[in-house]
Amino acid sequence: MSELSVSPQTLKVEDPLQLSSGASLPGYELIYETYGELNADASNAILICHALSGDHHVAGVDDEGKKGWWDGYIGPGKTINTDQFFVVCSNNLGGCRGSTGPTTINPETGKVYGPDFPIVTCRDWVNSQDRLRAHLGVEQWAAIVGGSMGGMQVLQWAIDYPDRLRHAVVIAAAPKLSAQNIAFNEVARRAIMSDPDFAEGRFIEKDTLPKQGLSLARMLGHLTYLSDDMMGSKFGRELREGKLQYNYDVEFQVESYLRYQGEKFATKQNFDANTYLLMTKALDYFDPAAEFEHDLSKALAKASAKFLVVSFTSDWRFSPQRSHEIVKALLDNDANVSYAEVESQHGHDAFLLPNTHYEGIFSAYMQRVYQDSTPSTGTLDGGNAE
Amino acid sequence: MSELSVSPQTLKVEDPLQLSSGASLPGYELIYETYGELNADASNAILICHALSGDHHVAGVDDEGKKGWWDGYIGPGKTINTDQFFVVCSNNLGGCRGSTGPTTINPETGKVYGPDFPIVTCRDWVNSQDRLRAHLGVEQWAAIVGGSMGGMQVLQWAIDYPDRLRHAVVIAAAPKLSAQNIAFNEVARRAIMSDPDFAEGRFIEKDTLPKQGLSLARMLGHLTYLSDDMMGSKFGRELREGKLQYNYDVEFQVESYLRYQGEKFATKQNFDANTYLLMTKALDYFDPAAEFEHDLSKALAKASAKFLVVSFTSDWRFSPQRSHEIVKALLDNDANVSYAEVESQHGHDAFLLPNTHYEGIFSAYMQRVYQDSTPSTGTLDGGNAE
Repeated sequence: MSELSVSPQTLKVEDPLQLSSGASLPGYELIYETYGELNADASNAILICHALSGDHHVAGVDDEGKKGWWDGYIGPGKTINTDQFFVVCSNNLGGCRGSTGPTTINPETGKVYGPDFPIVTCRDWVNSQDRLRAHLGVEQWAAIVGGSMGGMQVLQWAIDYPDRLRHAVVIAAAPKLSAQNIAFNEVARRAIMSDPDFAEGRFIEKDTLPKQGLSLARMLGHLTYLSDDMMGSKFGRELREGKLQYNYDVEFQVESYLRYQGEKFATKQNFDANTYLLMTKALDYFDPAAEFEHDLSKALAKASAKFLVVSFTSDWRFSPQRSHEIVKALLDNDANVSYAEVESQHGHDAFLLPNTHYEGIFSAYMQRVYQDSTPSTGTLDGGNAE
Repeated sequence: MSELSVSPQTLKVEDPLQLSSGASLPGYELIYETYGELNADASNAILICHALSGDHHVAGVDDEGKKGWWDGYIGPGKTINTDQFFVVCSNNLGGCRGSTGPTTINPETGKVYGPDFPIVTCRDWVNSQDRLRAHLGVEQWAAIVGGSMGGMQVLQWAIDYPDRLRHAVVIAAAPKLSAQNIAFNEVARRAIMSDPDFAEGRFIEKDTLPKQGLSLARMLGHLTYLSDDMMGSKFGRELREGKLQYNYDVEFQVESYLRYQGEKFATKQNFDANTYLLMTKALDYFDPAAEFEHDLSKALAKASAKFLVVSFTSDWRFSPQRSHEIVKALLDNDANVSYAEVESQHGHDAFLLPNTHYEGIFSAYMQRVYQDSTPSTGTLDGGNAE
């Protein structure tokens, strides 16, 4: 099977965008990729929402030969079949992969935004993405799909723009962060902000890099993405040099792995520290029930999409219980909801990894989405009264 | 009830101590406190082993008016009844509260040890404490008791000095750290060591303080001591100012709490960063089964103490499953073991907090210890054949 070759495009919006914080952006750019073809009635468009460190390059191979972060699930003949669907993914506002964010130029100063980029919320992301929808000529997404933070964004779409999507696929998400979730984010933020090379966020201007802080944040993130069991079976207590060293160098394989992940993120992947802060803050703030008397059922009352909700047994960042909250609130509204609790050892990361049960459910659901997106022949729906 | 007033004493050992690492200390001091009276046949002595950030001041009120860290459980009429027992607690070697460690003077250089203090292990702690036992005139401890890291030290005692204790009380512990446990320790160590004020461990000489790194390490520690549920019910998503601020100041109560804990630890409590590194490393290294073909049952084969093992349902740092491993290995040896899995919402911290079930079991067991330590009158054991 030939690989999907993709190049990003950019939507430039010249109208101001009002943000949840009260601030506004004079305009913004969203970088995005598309895969497959939009059909004649524009009924087969799927929007993918990315997770904390994700971006618009979700599938295929980009100009640098890099595979998309969910390429295992999106492509010709795959779970989200690009022979059937027109798939779209954009880098969130505040990101660092091409959309307007802390690393882009602030038109008001001519310098990079850095720490002056305003705090954005999940709602702001959805509002900005809705411009992309209009630009692409899509009246209604066949489905919006996302895992983790992306799953929260799907919920926000379903609540704020109920008519703009037929299906919502919410994977490994939660209706809001717990105190423990917020606490992990806060430790990560402290790690970044207390790195002297963070330079109060002006590290690009000062030509420094808060490498240590960002590495720490990423190490901590990884710790919460993996399950205890999975780390146990992958690393156990295996020693790098075969015996104890009695010093503070890397000794256990798990230390080596985490340190490598942290450094790669901060250097080779060059993730922006201000973006990391923004994304964690948007996660902390996500709480769609808050403006509905803290009642998630009320928050979801207007959502008209059909839902697939998926959780993974060993995910302790957003455990199955967190998905149950979403499912219960949907059922309170007699929504059309499918739910699967998938057995997996891989913790929160499971949503990105191969898993027969998960793939089966997800693929079957996407076929249902496809049925709903194909103009009815008149014989599929109805016919016999029974 | 009048409060127990205590002052520490110091044991000065002038013989060299061979360490597990191969290094040796020319001599060392252990600071300790005692509570209650040693009885005539020295059969009522209890040794308490402290956890990562603990010290010798376990009970009563010290010269500065500060209560001991386990005062709720140790004192006249309490669970470990100082009217019955002679209770001893020492600060571990490598500690920073008065025992020889990174903050004390290296006799070979005349400067503080700092990073030159050798890495110590749980076994080294036990070896050094055994000198304290001899000094106090105790042939055999009535019991050795500890929670968390202290519980591991109890296990090490039971394995290395089986004749030196009659009872082992191992609370909220594990037979070794999991990959996840090690990973958390490693992130904490990275936080400390990447703080420029750590100055490669020579912060005392340079008159700096790795406050940010140590605060981060402590914040992360706290996160693993508390359960998700407990943080939820204590803090939830409560905002400090009542509404979102859209900046990176402290917003959620849980952030405020963690930041306060971190700063207090690094400044007011002035915990030594090198000691923190040493203690986490000793935890990582603890694995008594390693030299017994990784078979905990074999490691415990020579242990002759009677055991009480206690775990707490919401403890995810050292979950009940980790205690099960200990209990199973003891049962493989037909050891005399009692086990309790205590319902608690308080996570790992539960071992320090009031809990009726826990207190009941613990007190009952200590009464059994007391029976075993009181010279038999001849009528308690035996008499009637039945």
